[in-house]
Amino acid sequence: MGTAARLGIGDDCAVLRPKAGYEVCVTTDFTLEERHFRRDWHPPESVGHRCLARGLSDLAAMGAEPMAVFLSLAVPARLPAKWVDRFLDGFLGLARKHRVALAGGDTAQSPAVSNQISKQGDGLILADVVAVGQVPRGKAVLRRGARVGDWIYCTGALGGAAAELASLAENSRRFGKITKAAAGHPHFYPEPRLAVGRRLRVLAHAMIDLSDGLSTDLTHLCKESGVAAVIDEAAVPVHSLAAGAENPLDLALHGGEDYELLFTAGRSARIPQKVAGVPIHRIGTICEARRRGPRIVLETRNRGRMPLEAGGYEHFRQVKSVGPRSLTTRLATPVPRLHLR
Amino acid sequence: MGTAARLGIGDDCAVLRPKAGYEVCVTTDFTLEERHFRRDWHPPESVGHRCLARGLSDLAAMGAEPMAVFLSLAVPARLPAKWVDRFLDGFLGLARKHRVALAGGDTAQSPAVSNQISKQGDGLILADVVAVGQVPRGKAVLRRGARVGDWIYCTGALGGAAAELASLAENSRRFGKITKAAAGHPHFYPEPRLAVGRRLRVLAHAMIDLSDGLSTDLTHLCKESGVAAVIDEAAVPVHSLAAGAENPLDLALHGGEDYELLFTAGRSARIPQKVAGVPIHRIGTICEARRRGPRIVLETRNRGRMPLEAGGYEHFRQVKSVGPRSLTTRLATPVPRLHLR
Repeated sequence: MGTAARLGIGDDCAVLRPKAGYEVCVTTDFTLEERHFRRDWHPPESVGHRCLARGLSDLAAMGAEPMAVFLSLAVPARLPAKWVDRFLDGFLGLARKHRVALAGGDTAQSPAVSNQISKQGDGLILADVVAVGQVPRGKAVLRRGARVGDWIYCTGALGGAAAELASLAENSRRFGKITKAAAGHPHFYPEPRLAVGRRLRVLAHAMIDLSDGLSTDLTHLCKESGVAAVIDEAAVPVHSLAAGAENPLDLALHGGEDYELLFTAGRSARIPQKVAGVPIHRIGTICEARRRGPRIVLETRNRGRMPLEAGGYEHFRQVKSVGPRSLTTRLATPVPRLHLR
Repeated sequence: MGTAARLGIGDDCAVLRPKAGYEVCVTTDFTLEERHFRRDWHPPESVGHRCLARGLSDLAAMGAEPMAVFLSLAVPARLPAKWVDRFLDGFLGLARKHRVALAGGDTAQSPAVSNQISKQGDGLILADVVAVGQVPRGKAVLRRGARVGDWIYCTGALGGAAAELASLAENSRRFGKITKAAAGHPHFYPEPRLAVGRRLRVLAHAMIDLSDGLSTDLTHLCKESGVAAVIDEAAVPVHSLAAGAENPLDLALHGGEDYELLFTAGRSARIPQKVAGVPIHRIGTICEARRRGPRIVLETRNRGRMPLEAGGYEHFRQVKSVGPRSLTTRLATPVPRLHLR
């Protein structure tokens, strides 16, 4: 635990002390049983790990250092204590790895639901995770900083999480034993790229984490920056788990939840081939947005240039205005956030 | 909206800029349908108001100024958009009153539940609210600062929220029209005491907000400070709504959710009779904790001195250690947080 959390659980609030001249980054993510995970598919350690990884990955995408995390957890009355124990093993294991303290939260008993839905004949598990980080004033890497002529990069390899989720859907029994965070399980134990994001703070013009899939997240970044992009199909790093699938490139382009980083940088920026052991690939170029042209073009070897539509998962984080009307409009047409069903 | 939220909804994180030399306070609270409110009892405006009031009241209890709030909301697919609209009216109305921005959050569709539970035959409404505030370094008012000889004070009047909830349980139809935050409805529209808390920052030794009831919250404060307390029964300010009930003093001593502030200060401190229009009452004295003595004693006119047991609502915020074992132990024996059932 760092010194950022001066006072943790046990008072009305946690008190955090940012470094002098730093700003504070805050992100919050809901994780709902049956929506983001299934009790019969996911070991509790994986659920704990994943719900924290989502928040830490958002901090990584700003170039922020984590200060503290908060866990609000609602569990059904009849949930075995062992499940929560194992959930916390996964959650706290990832927190320890990144030296971030669990500084507070809230717990409640979740209301009971029907047998048909929960199979356990009891309530559902609900978690809301808040991650708080810090970044030197004005140095947070935003989505909106991409400039025409920038090169586009991503970390690691893509499509692995979607490939593993597809295998899980086919045969969920195979995965019951994966109770430890281990490389090679990008769906169960994604690795937030905090060290990479921090290093990129001085190099990247714009950055986003790949939670919804390359095509969707690049669209977000381009829209925010008012630009367009060309992606070189051959340069997209396909994860080894996806490589064996029927449609490796689709998984890499549209599969969500890889939690790698997507960023742009000027052509003169010296982007290392690896940061903190994670490879970095140049995959395309930022160009001018044309009025009727596609936002993203995929440049292929054999099929020429083709428009790349956002095909990953949309969610609501991109709501621009905080007025009641706009938020309601989004809420009125909710879309599930995961491929579970 | 103040300038604290430099960047709101629309990026991976919100970016907040604390004032130089300030620390950051964070609190998070779950609000669950059927646990904290009922759709057939509470107007949506009240639900929105209440879930934000809980967080702002925690900031008030530290003496903090609010910087930004975050709302994670899961709603069932079939919930009318109007409900969310009205919920946000209540939420954003209170936010505007305290000049605090909604800087982000998350939304999801909540899983469906059985007819038996939800009556609507659909999912339940779940909200998690994060409130972030700032306080000059080292000046947050903690629960653990009470000293022997301190006088004990509370703001406003107590028992009103519990009295109004009791009336609601008796006749829920009466209350459907209370769709605007109005004084005199302490259960539906509690008023977080932010201005009072901020003013008390330089005067109070220890402070807590009265969310669980005087007897319970004073017990928390005394335990954290390693002291005991004597309360003068005649000095406890009973809310006018409670005064007409069968058991006014019980409501004032044990009723929760008044969201007034309870604090201690040295005898030489000049505590105003009113701060920001809110009356302040001296109700007791901090004394030494005795090994086998009661933590709190009630001094009465006719019945002498009697021990005052914590009788309000316990919840889990007081978990001291963040080890998986301790949190699990608490989670394994969940207690509902409200008197709804």
